[in-house]
Amino acid sequence: MEVPDLLTAQQLDRLREIAAQANFADGRLSNPHSKVKRNLQIDHNDPLYEESANTLAEAMMRNEAVLNFAYISRLAPPLICRYQPDMAYGKHADAAFLPMRPTPLRSDISSTIFLADPETYEGGELTIHLGNKTISVKGKAGSAILYPSTTIHEVMPVTSGERLVAITFIESQIMDEHRRYLLYTLKEVSALEGFNISWDNRVQLAHVCDSLHRMWST
Amino acid sequence: MEVPDLLTAQQLDRLREIAAQANFADGRLSNPHSKVKRNLQIDHNDPLYEESANTLAEAMMRNEAVLNFAYISRLAPPLICRYQPDMAYGKHADAAFLPMRPTPLRSDISSTIFLADPETYEGGELTIHLGNKTISVKGKAGSAILYPSTTIHEVMPVTSGERLVAITFIESQIMDEHRRYLLYTLKEVSALEGFNISWDNRVQLAHVCDSLHRMWST
Amino acid sequence: MEVPDLLTAQQLDRLREIAAQANFADGRLSNPHSKVKRNLQIDHNDPLYEESANTLAEAMMRNEAVLNFAYISRLAPPLICRYQPDMAYGKHADAAFLPMRPTPLRSDISSTIFLADPETYEGGELTIHLGNKTISVKGKAGSAILYPSTTIHEVMPVTSGERLVAITFIESQIMDEHRRYLLYTLKEVSALEGFNISWDNRVQLAHVCDSLHRMWST
Amino acid sequence: MEVPDLLTAQQLDRLREIAAQANFADGRLSNPHSKVKRNLQIDHNDPLYEESANTLAEAMMRNEAVLNFAYISRLAPPLICRYQPDMAYGKHADAAFLPMRPTPLRSDISSTIFLADPETYEGGELTIHLGNKTISVKGKAGSAILYPSTTIHEVMPVTSGERLVAITFIESQIMDEHRRYLLYTLKEVSALEGFNISWDNRVQLAHVCDSLHRMWST
Amino acid sequence: MEVPDLLTAQQLDRLREIAAQANFADGRLSNPHSKVKRNLQIDHNDPLYEESANTLAEAMMRNEAVLNFAYISRLAPPLICRYQPDMAYGKHADAAFLPMRPTPLRSDISSTIFLADPETYEGGELTIHLGNKTISVKGKAGSAILYPSTTIHEVMPVTSGERLVAITFIESQIMDEHRRYLLYTLKEVSALEGFNISWDNRVQLAHVCDSLHRMWST
Amino acid sequence: MEVPDLLTAQQLDRLREIAAQANFADGRLSNPHSKVKRNLQIDHNDPLYEESANTLAEAMMRNEAVLNFAYISRLAPPLICRYQPDMAYGKHADAAFLPMRPTPLRSDISSTIFLADPETYEGGELTIHLGNKTISVKGKAGSAILYPSTTIHEVMPVTSGERLVAITFIESQIMDEHRRYLLYTLKEVSALEGFNISWDNRVQLAHVCDSLHRMWST
Repeated sequence: MEVPDLLTAQQLDRLREIAAQANFADGRLSNPHSKVKRNLQIDHNDPLYEESANTLAEAMMRNEAVLNFAYISRLAPPLICRYQPDMAYGKHADAAFLPMRPTPLRSDISSTIFLADPETYEGGELTIHLGNKTISVKGKAGSAILYPSTTIHEVMPVTSGERLVAITFIESQIMDEHRRYLLYTLKEVSALEGFNISWDNRVQLAHVCDSLHRMWST
Repeated sequence: MEVPDLLTAQQLDRLREIAAQANFADGRLSNPHSKVKRNLQIDHNDPLYEESANTLAEAMMRNEAVLNFAYISRLAPPLICRYQPDMAYGKHADAAFLPMRPTPLRSDISSTIFLADPETYEGGELTIHLGNKTISVKGKAGSAILYPSTTIHEVMPVTSGERLVAITFIESQIMDEHRRYLLYTLKEVSALEGFNISWDNRVQLAHVCDSLHRMWST
Repeated sequence: MEVPDLLTAQQLDRLREIAAQANFADGRLSNPHSKVKRNLQIDHNDPLYEESANTLAEAMMRNEAVLNFAYISRLAPPLICRYQPDMAYGKHADAAFLPMRPTPLRSDISSTIFLADPETYEGGELTIHLGNKTISVKGKAGSAILYPSTTIHEVMPVTSGERLVAITFIESQIMDEHRRYLLYTLKEVSALEGFNISWDNRVQLAHVCDSLHRMWST
Repeated sequence: MEVPDLLTAQQLDRLREIAAQANFADGRLSNPHSKVKRNLQIDHNDPLYEESANTLAEAMMRNEAVLNFAYISRLAPPLICRYQPDMAYGKHADAAFLPMRPTPLRSDISSTIFLADPETYEGGELTIHLGNKTISVKGKAGSAILYPSTTIHEVMPVTSGERLVAITFIESQIMDEHRRYLLYTLKEVSALEGFNISWDNRVQLAHVCDSLHRMWST
Repeated sequence: MEVPDLLTAQQLDRLREIAAQANFADGRLSNPHSKVKRNLQIDHNDPLYEESANTLAEAMMRNEAVLNFAYISRLAPPLICRYQPDMAYGKHADAAFLPMRPTPLRSDISSTIFLADPETYEGGELTIHLGNKTISVKGKAGSAILYPSTTIHEVMPVTSGERLVAITFIESQIMDEHRRYLLYTLKEVSALEGFNISWDNRVQLAHVCDSLHRMWST
Repeated sequence: MEVPDLLTAQQLDRLREIAAQANFADGRLSNPHSKVKRNLQIDHNDPLYEESANTLAEAMMRNEAVLNFAYISRLAPPLICRYQPDMAYGKHADAAFLPMRPTPLRSDISSTIFLADPETYEGGELTIHLGNKTISVKGKAGSAILYPSTTIHEVMPVTSGERLVAITFIESQIMDEHRRYLLYTLKEVSALEGFNISWDNRVQLAHVCDSLHRMWST
């Protein structure tokens, strides 16, 4: 799902400022076994790191479209990444669990938040493989894309300019993607048609939605 | 669920005629270990047995309310039973599986079809125990009740007259009672409000119904 | 399930005292979209609120019958509600999740604790819809009823006097109502017959109970 | 999944011949409630219908790629459809169950087999909606596409020429699409790397595949 | 599970007679890809094959211990196998599905029926690997062993004499081994203690057994 | 699963020292209803208790074999137990849940860590019942065994010397034992053969492992 205006202009400016000032480390530090990861990530020890993570997390947690779609149970602290010319992140699937307190966070939905204007860099598309189809995304600055962590995906090599993004991972109340989408669909219909149907049938629809939500949460 | 007019007047007359002419056997023959069953059942070898079973099965399979509610996968041949004064069927749960070809039939829903006018006999209520509540049913002639085979239930002693009923068992496409009821509810709302909502939302609702039906069938 | 003596006479007196002294707010504040809710709820900011919630929560958490039946994982803070003449709460289903720290509480079981003598008010029955049957409850002061949050239910209009109750919501270790009830039944049989059967079979029964408990907890 | 050469040149020729000679009926006959279906379907009573269905079914059941991907439990008889200028099939989801003997067939995977060269007609793309992305397919003559029956899809209006296809529906041993794809992936890896790994590890991989196949079949 | 007296002395004599007269084929014919199978199997085209399969299948289907333990839904035709000196069947897991009409048979439980006296051959133990423990079985003539088809197992090389056995595969109503065993345990306790507990508690236990049987059957 | 060197020589020495100095209480205090438990357990109030629990917990949490096998979500504080002559712990199954903050800990895997040399005591075998097979374990000092909490097991009477062990309980991310073992097997194969197969197939295998881990975690 694409979220067009996740960040306000001010948030976007501040995050670019932080990216310009903070230290960045080699992305391989957090995935030492990967043979395909070549990028830079904001240094966790930099005092600006926490501000960037908080700003991005709040933007996610306050966005109606994200909340309705993702049924967020927990959110990993978002991380700013940069890809300079020749950097890329080859085909991989995101890890099922991220180390977090008090228990590991299960990554059900992955998200990329675009911080750079797509006109300012070449290459660097996020390419998601669905069976033998692929979907390629290069979003506008301030927008975000959410996609299942179960897909195999890659970031194509950047050939000029700089790809500046943030990434984060969502543990959803509803692990299964297909069920999550069915409930989302049913709630959308209820919201759109709520005033065209009788009160009794609204109660029945809400009852079905609540029952599915309960039954599918883990 | 109560089904008010499962049988037509003609069907009812013919079934009572059959009950008057056919041989009946001791109900303990089919449940030799039961200490609480005291009733009579139509003899499987009586030539009228098959006619009675076919008439009752067709009435079930053609009733819209039954079809929408029960998601019938298979139906056991209905069986006419009579309870004369002092007969009863004490507390029991219906067996999970009935011997049938080519594989045993799983009983998800039990049904009693009332053949005698309730004014013509005293006692004989079907009493269903739900936790520590009970529901008592003594239906009109030609009506039926469907209830989960998982409940503990009993037929109270008949004190005068004759309780004439037929019983049958349904294997449903959707084993779980709660799921079956949710899908029934959603389909009812779709049917009632289909013309008050947009075509696109009708397609979405149908899509959710079909997906749940598929996901929950076993 | 009905719990006859959840509260002691002293607890009941003190809760009525609190209800007489504390501020109450319009129930619509916590459900702004509801068209059917017309009642009063104790004000969360009133210093007496916390005492009332603690007293009621402890009564629940120490009651053997509640513990054996509900497999409580978490309990929402109970809330005193009053219904004065003409107040009611029309047909609705309880929300699947309540906002709580650190994660939302899933409401599996709803509970009403009766604080007023049923003779002191007219109307105000709690009516639970099960398919097209209904169960109506107006409990004795100090008693409680537990019922699945998945049911559609309503509070009938009060016509005279005042209905004073507390409500709370339970997240159970076992979400599915049917499974929870099966395990409850098996444990009851084990407890009642434990001394009539051999030690080896007691171990086997305990083993089955533990395995089901483990398998069904989420 | 796309299957490039499902049909041989001879099979394709014969099916086109049949399409030229057989009677076709209005597609609305089999979906009387649909407001969006406008096409023609081969008449079930035409003596050529059975030959066409058998030829197509055999081609499916003998194709290695189809068998490995779909875990076919049952296959609905394929049906030749034609779309002449202005015909189309608007947005819809395929029904969850098709009437079949002895029990209804659950449609898990839908398939379109292309019989006309794509250069011979304009429009008529099969468009599959995945969230708010779409995939458009217009396959070569003799090729087929398989896609989950749970998606909402449509056939765009034909503007010139004639779109000649056959459609069929698969009940899979593995209902859930995500699980089916995981097992397919694991078996592919085993097949491709079987000779590069030790015999003991081949046995272990086969054991995992068999266990998942068993566990997920319904 | 070991079944001491599956076959009567007469059945055992007749099956040995058949084995002495019938044609046997190389076991690799039915598993052409296996590198570890070295045995002989009775020829399906031999007129005595059907008699042997029927005798063995009936013995299985009439054995109380087998029926209570395995919840047989379908049984593959048993097959007589012989292992002469130097023959063996290396480590393998049984296939999840066997080709059968009208649908493939899922193998949940594998069974070996011993036809030769263990004193008449050396080697040839059936060795079942459970994690890094192993269980070795060399049963008495006429006895059988049932074990989960999911285990990795092997037949050790025969060093002298002849190992004569029959093998068969069971599709169970309850696929999951752990659940099947829990239900078996609960039914055993009910059977053993049925007369030591009250009628009401017997009904409750039967109700739990039936509900689990229903819930877990697929 | 047996873990040969869970404890270093120093850890083992220190734990024996603690066992020699600390107070021990009757094991019946924590299971007052048990008729079969006769052993001694380190006193929770002894100041040495916490050191012993921390040392043992760290050894578990840092052992690669344990981590790969058990998918630990939470670990109960390990407890030192001693069995002197005539002590034993008869047949029992471990409780499904242990009281712990903030929610009860579900015991999926039980572990015994051996602190005494097996030559220094007679009897005291840990005997695990699997159906009607048994496995007997008397491990080397410093080693541990992990086994499903669902099994019925016992500690045989000690006839001379002293059996000194520690016990602990693991809540696993993957409750079901069979699924946990399948994932363990698949990860082992991936680790062992990772460099013999192509990068693309390594990514695919990792993707299947991550998807199963996610799907099966609760």
